[in-house]
Amino acid sequence: MTSLQNYVGGRWLAGSGDPKTLHEPATEAVLGDVRPGGIDFVAMLEHARKVGGPALRALTFPQRAERLKALAAKLHDHRDELIEIAAKNGGNTRGDAKFDLDGASGTLAYYAGLGAAMPAGFHLPDGEGIQLTRSPRFHGQHVWTSRPGVAVHINAFNFPAWGMGEKMACALLAGVPVIEKAGTASALLAHRLAQIVVESGLLPEGSFQFVAGSVSGALDLLGPMDAVAFTGSAATGALIRGNKNLIARNVRVNIEADSINPAVLGPDVESGSDTFEQFLANLTIDMTQKAGQKCTAVRRILVPTARLAEVQEELIERLRAVKLGNPLDNDVRMGPVASAEQLRDVRQGMERLQAVASTLLGGTAAVQAKGYFVAPTLLLAKDAEAPVLHELEVFGPCATLVPYDGSAARAVGLCNRGGGGLVASVYSDDREFVESTVLGIAPWHGRIWLGSEKTMNQATSPGAVLPATIHGGPGRAGGGEELGGLRGLAPYMQRTAIQGDRAVVGRTFGNESAG
Amino acid sequence: MTSLQNYVGGRWLAGSGDPKTLHEPATEAVLGDVRPGGIDFVAMLEHARKVGGPALRALTFPQRAERLKALAAKLHDHRDELIEIAAKNGGNTRGDAKFDLDGASGTLAYYAGLGAAMPAGFHLPDGEGIQLTRSPRFHGQHVWTSRPGVAVHINAFNFPAWGMGEKMACALLAGVPVIEKAGTASALLAHRLAQIVVESGLLPEGSFQFVAGSVSGALDLLGPMDAVAFTGSAATGALIRGNKNLIARNVRVNIEADSINPAVLGPDVESGSDTFEQFLANLTIDMTQKAGQKCTAVRRILVPTARLAEVQEELIERLRAVKLGNPLDNDVRMGPVASAEQLRDVRQGMERLQAVASTLLGGTAAVQAKGYFVAPTLLLAKDAEAPVLHELEVFGPCATLVPYDGSAARAVGLCNRGGGGLVASVYSDDREFVESTVLGIAPWHGRIWLGSEKTMNQATSPGAVLPATIHGGPGRAGGGEELGGLRGLAPYMQRTAIQGDRAVVGRTFGNESAG
Repeated sequence: MTSLQNYVGGRWLAGSGDPKTLHEPATEAVLGDVRPGGIDFVAMLEHARKVGGPALRALTFPQRAERLKALAAKLHDHRDELIEIAAKNGGNTRGDAKFDLDGASGTLAYYAGLGAAMPAGFHLPDGEGIQLTRSPRFHGQHVWTSRPGVAVHINAFNFPAWGMGEKMACALLAGVPVIEKAGTASALLAHRLAQIVVESGLLPEGSFQFVAGSVSGALDLLGPMDAVAFTGSAATGALIRGNKNLIARNVRVNIEADSINPAVLGPDVESGSDTFEQFLANLTIDMTQKAGQKCTAVRRILVPTARLAEVQEELIERLRAVKLGNPLDNDVRMGPVASAEQLRDVRQGMERLQAVASTLLGGTAAVQAKGYFVAPTLLLAKDAEAPVLHELEVFGPCATLVPYDGSAARAVGLCNRGGGGLVASVYSDDREFVESTVLGIAPWHGRIWLGSEKTMNQATSPGAVLPATIHGGPGRAGGGEELGGLRGLAPYMQRTAIQGDRAVVGRTFGNESAG
Repeated sequence: MTSLQNYVGGRWLAGSGDPKTLHEPATEAVLGDVRPGGIDFVAMLEHARKVGGPALRALTFPQRAERLKALAAKLHDHRDELIEIAAKNGGNTRGDAKFDLDGASGTLAYYAGLGAAMPAGFHLPDGEGIQLTRSPRFHGQHVWTSRPGVAVHINAFNFPAWGMGEKMACALLAGVPVIEKAGTASALLAHRLAQIVVESGLLPEGSFQFVAGSVSGALDLLGPMDAVAFTGSAATGALIRGNKNLIARNVRVNIEADSINPAVLGPDVESGSDTFEQFLANLTIDMTQKAGQKCTAVRRILVPTARLAEVQEELIERLRAVKLGNPLDNDVRMGPVASAEQLRDVRQGMERLQAVASTLLGGTAAVQAKGYFVAPTLLLAKDAEAPVLHELEVFGPCATLVPYDGSAARAVGLCNRGGGGLVASVYSDDREFVESTVLGIAPWHGRIWLGSEKTMNQATSPGAVLPATIHGGPGRAGGGEELGGLRGLAPYMQRTAIQGDRAVVGRTFGNESAG
């Protein structure tokens, strides 16, 4: 049995303390364990700050980008091996595993592309130069520089590859060494990824360290130049944000947490139309991909009351067609949830929703004797106003139909009851409905995906996070922001206004040529 | 005797509870009082959210900008009256008062100018549109929309007009109603400003409310769309950031706190040069303007060891020439600090510095029998490494000379010991020294001011905060960011990525014309 190791200070070291056993979610077979202790965080942070950071920041942006590009290729080389681990360790179907792994290499490659076009230097101008007073001599320029700190990334179990990849890509391109903590349930895949990264020799020593167990001991040691990025539950997010040391030293904290993502069917969308087809197809993907364990998955489906019967029937038919089973079987389309703990949480959550919603499909009953399987579950709200519908994220293949009157105002009100979300999707070809809905829900959502006739076969699904657009959301969703092209580097850099003689400021720090 | 009132829910209401007496700092005469209680915060927030916010957001950006422009003019109309109050209530000389008041009207006018050029609508595109996949149909656009919340602004006593003006300008242009809390010591001026704002009728009812006493009861009632901006001590900043409700609900918090701002004299700067003249003149201004009560004032003066004697002599001569006294006297150039509490804090801080520095000028001795006067005080570090030099902000007319070896590396090391600052100034005409120093200190500072021959008579002093460039700093300085043109609206708006058909996204939410 494997006990996963940590990569600390340039060496692979065993953990210590009470082991947490990792199971194969499809069979409950034991795969290995993770031990929380055994890490000297003072030394680990020192290694990042004194060895990794300086080496990384000795590279220009385009040089860092080259490393990311090679790393993306390296991950791709190991794709088949990793897909197998993802199936065994994460309960991922082949499609689920690719979504995660290609997300990781795609995001690394995307940032490699961005970095290749960045200045061959160590700072990045932010915006244009500004004349500061009546005199054209006194000139201002904002610049971004790399913070000489460490990025501690606390990843979620659901996207062991993509989650780590997207956080790493941004921090490393920004010039900040990373400590990647694996989500426990999928730590086996994360561990193999870390091995590949380390063995590649592509990243300067000290710029990448890996923790399979716990990093909570590191949080008390961080300072003003460091950053913490966390993806996971709102409750744990609040604990991190409330950490006394992080508060006292103004350590940057970026959190992605719960999100009760809504999908809205516009009143104009006709049966059989391309827009309607996308609505049904995307819902089916979102509910079953990764067994619904996506922070961007739809949880609330807003449907005009008059269309409820039709949507219900169509969705049930599609969800019934999704074959559930061991992800190692090629014809299986949905695997189990990741762990016994997740299974328990999902069932408890469903029960709470069932108190205010009727069960149209699926439910909490066991699907088979072994494994952490949950049937695709479609609920129908008895009362659209019931708080639990809008406040509880059930992290599994479960969504609730919420009838509404077809007005943009009502859709906006219900969507925003989520208290802040990562993504809302709106399906409509009525420009007015779209504009009213979007402007009404935008302040409460980090991303809005619009389905219309023209997006048929042209768009990724709303659940997919693309590196060119931001990922994050206000309120319950954590208040964080990641990705979004160069915006994704901001958490790891400092913005500084430089003021002075135009000849000095413009040419040395801005975009003006030394003509 | 005046007991200051609060403007809440459309009415002026008396405070209640234990009064805090306001004194004239030059004479210790009693001017009035502030009472902390008597405000129904639930109703106050409701008024902002239900009445003020919707009315403000019914105006387009340029319409909001018009109100700001008129407000700037209105403040200017009352300038003479306000200067007199600032002298009496704040101990401000005429110059100090103008710096504060013109800062307020100037910043309002600046944002009015920005707003006039913004889209005549309700959202603001962020960056260019992005092709998201291989298909040019699937298009992304980031937009900023107004958060339907409240901005609670906790202002510092040292800039009652400018502090309130700059925070208001950004929030109101962003479409968010404000609750302005006055810094207690200068609440009389803030109160008069609030009266002028209210009487002007320029702002929609509910978009401006005013608290003379305490807003701490409001913090427990804020939600995900609200924002808190605080300017003041690092200790109070940490208390606000640690507020359980603000953490649990991911309320945005923007803090400007302590800053041990450094000024660096480059080794190349010759006696009598324009660069040297600016160095001396700016230090004299910074140390004595507002009796040193500026968050951007220089606290550490880094001087090459070989130049120490000369700088010492020149500075002492200039500081001696600054006439101290009652700011109502026209020839007085420096008034008292704002309150008995400030006087005590400044003296205690000076004593702590004096333990590691020798006193070249001034000190803690009483200047005259009545009033909160402090003599301009110049210290010389005995040990450049002493922690207190780099960690303690003495909020008065006091700075410490810190000798260094003239190398950029040493200057960078000492500057960054401040643990995060608002502004650093660097005086040099040596391009290499400037570049090395700037890139070394940028991650630790929100703003860097460069003095060189060409800036003579062309630049504002480093202590002046300009609306076009950001104000804020990492670490000890609070980790916040204000102003900086449109960047200053970000704390009050939500950034959302919109994805969909290019024809819909680009034309409705982006910059593409509906051609």
